Amino acid sequence: MDIPELFLKKNEDKRLRLGHLWIFSNEVDIKRSPLNRFAPGDLAQVAAHDGKPLGTAYVNPNALICARLLSRKPNLKCGPNFFKDRIGTALAKREKVFDKPYYRLAFGESDGLPGLVIDRFGDVLSAQITTAGIEQRKEAVLAALVELLNPAAIVLKNDNSQRQLEGLPMESVVAYGELPDPLVIEENGAKFRIDILSGQKTGWFYDHRMSRAELARIANGQRILDLFSYTGAWSIPAARAGALEVICVDASEAALQLARENAALNGVEDRMRFAHSDVFDFLKQARQERRLYDMIVLDPPALIKRKKDYPQGYEAYRRLNHLALQVLAKNGLLISASCSFHLSREDLHEILRSSGRHIDRHLTFIAQGGQGPDHPIDPAIPETQYLKTFFCSVSSAL
Amino acid sequence: MDIPELFLKKNEDKRLRLGHLWIFSNEVDIKRSPLNRFAPGDLAQVAAHDGKPLGTAYVNPNALICARLLSRKPNLKCGPNFFKDRIGTALAKREKVFDKPYYRLAFGESDGLPGLVIDRFGDVLSAQITTAGIEQRKEAVLAALVELLNPAAIVLKNDNSQRQLEGLPMESVVAYGELPDPLVIEENGAKFRIDILSGQKTGWFYDHRMSRAELARIANGQRILDLFSYTGAWSIPAARAGALEVICVDASEAALQLARENAALNGVEDRMRFAHSDVFDFLKQARQERRLYDMIVLDPPALIKRKKDYPQGYEAYRRLNHLALQVLAKNGLLISASCSFHLSREDLHEILRSSGRHIDRHLTFIAQGGQGPDHPIDPAIPETQYLKTFFCSVSSAL
Repeated sequence: MDIPELFLKKNEDKRLRLGHLWIFSNEVDIKRSPLNRFAPGDLAQVAAHDGKPLGTAYVNPNALICARLLSRKPNLKCGPNFFKDRIGTALAKREKVFDKPYYRLAFGESDGLPGLVIDRFGDVLSAQITTAGIEQRKEAVLAALVELLNPAAIVLKNDNSQRQLEGLPMESVVAYGELPDPLVIEENGAKFRIDILSGQKTGWFYDHRMSRAELARIANGQRILDLFSYTGAWSIPAARAGALEVICVDASEAALQLARENAALNGVEDRMRFAHSDVFDFLKQARQERRLYDMIVLDPPALIKRKKDYPQGYEAYRRLNHLALQVLAKNGLLISASCSFHLSREDLHEILRSSGRHIDRHLTFIAQGGQGPDHPIDPAIPETQYLKTFFCSVSSAL
Repeated sequence: MDIPELFLKKNEDKRLRLGHLWIFSNEVDIKRSPLNRFAPGDLAQVAAHDGKPLGTAYVNPNALICARLLSRKPNLKCGPNFFKDRIGTALAKREKVFDKPYYRLAFGESDGLPGLVIDRFGDVLSAQITTAGIEQRKEAVLAALVELLNPAAIVLKNDNSQRQLEGLPMESVVAYGELPDPLVIEENGAKFRIDILSGQKTGWFYDHRMSRAELARIANGQRILDLFSYTGAWSIPAARAGALEVICVDASEAALQLARENAALNGVEDRMRFAHSDVFDFLKQARQERRLYDMIVLDPPALIKRKKDYPQGYEAYRRLNHLALQVLAKNGLLISASCSFHLSREDLHEILRSSGRHIDRHLTFIAQGGQGPDHPIDPAIPETQYLKTFFCSVSSAL
């Protein structure tokens, strides 16, 4: 047998049997299969305590999640063909639901590719590798991508803090081809210039696409406040759809500069304003000056990155939603989102309920959104579901 | 004081303070305020145990939910102006998000109108009254509707079984004006002939509108199976959007007859087929004959009407989803819905996870849907949230 076995302790096969792909280091029977026999990225055949095979995983003996299942099959060969097959399936799924080549092409565990995220920006691909198992096979990933899509460029945007848990260095490099400048993508009918190498994450957040489309559908004639606007992904389609005025608020001048360029690119600069400000400060001042907005988008970056940040992160979400409701016009709409995995949908639901009651308004949800189809959720892997959006209609108290 | 007081027991004001509108009979301090002093439909001023006013409710001493709050204000006058105000606010909210007059105009508690549901079919209105409090004021409701919308007809579709809990008779009557024949509405660009008086509920189910639009968006070139099709609300927009073939399955010949007429009305009869069958039988036979479909819509009627039906209802949902997955083509899409309040989103999530594992497929959620914006959810009233839809992409096991 070419791939060594990794035995689990008794009953520790349950999560995998239910469909999850992760193995935690304390679940491994280290007497039978010491983890230090594996180098980071090595393959293992995972077996239950009774010896029954569970599939093939890659291992990182130094990480808390010490192995991730790649397949339910034994003796998997994890070379270019494996990646071609998995990325090819992911591509076919995207092509079924999107008619333009702008989407998250692979979403880690949900596409059977633990540790690998790939965004597609037309003929440019931006990949994030977060585990040693994928890092060791990055040439195979690149080869599969070149064969499947013949891209102009592939960027490895490997600056995610998860890499530190796996003992991997940070890097942002063009690993294949040449990056076009400028790079322009499309979302909800609008064009956006993006900057992969110096932008956040892979350079763009496709995940809110469907909720942004929903905002654009109802934006005509509205005055909209876009908090944490980043480069204008909510604002610009809304302005194109006939919003009277959209105000982008962000603490990053670089993000606002790109938002300004994007506004011009879409011919809506006359209807957009840009406020370089801390969002809390902006809201407090707007409240003081009794400014009111018809619609407010509140889409902060992850305010709870680790579980231990939960109490103060929850409080930050609560204060932001509370403040936003106070500058919302009568019969207005608050679009409140969270991308923090640790803030549950129920948490945000409760923050909105209590904030509505506290300021004596009648608040109802007219829509709820989440990740678009290019960020599929694996029902057995709770960690694949992180995004929640509530469209709140707010009127006078009953 | 013209309106008598209804005192709650100690700490029984909590639910109302959190934003709910219901009072259960065991929460009333019947020594201080005997329920039998109230006739069904009478108003009461609700007070906490310490005498603090909580608002105005209508009472039904014979119902388990013995009072429903209409307003947080004392001494509410609940005549035509009250209904004009509440329905007017509900109307303004719909007009903000829909450009055609086809929607649920009022959704009970979520619109501050406990016991009243109104669907708008152009200039025809179909109302459902489920409580004695509204029944006693139906002339005021009709007057408000006539003043706000000058409709051609108002139907009272009072055949909901909830009425029995309130001691109200069943009736389906044209209470105002004259009903046009045929009555044709629009949804997702398709036209539908509907039959209010002999149809289910108010005659149409607007609640799935957004999910049906999502299906139509991706239906081009697909072979679709529409289970429990009723009159074709999922099928016909999908056929219009270019589906190769859509098969409607329903146990009601009358529903299928209307679906056939609707197919013709939209010029898609050549791409639609109709199977008059029990859905379980249809699926078993399809499995036996190894027929496969690219997309399957599984939108059964409420299989859990009362809490005590939960175990057998859960099992029926499980079997249906299991059977449907077995006739889904490779890389197909299952759109699985439930309108049973008692089957939670988590329940359906678990049914889909376990069914996918059981037949050894990789199942992920590419979208999740729920009630459209004309069925707002009150975050303080769990009972206002009942609809859940999962778009499941299903491929070979990892």
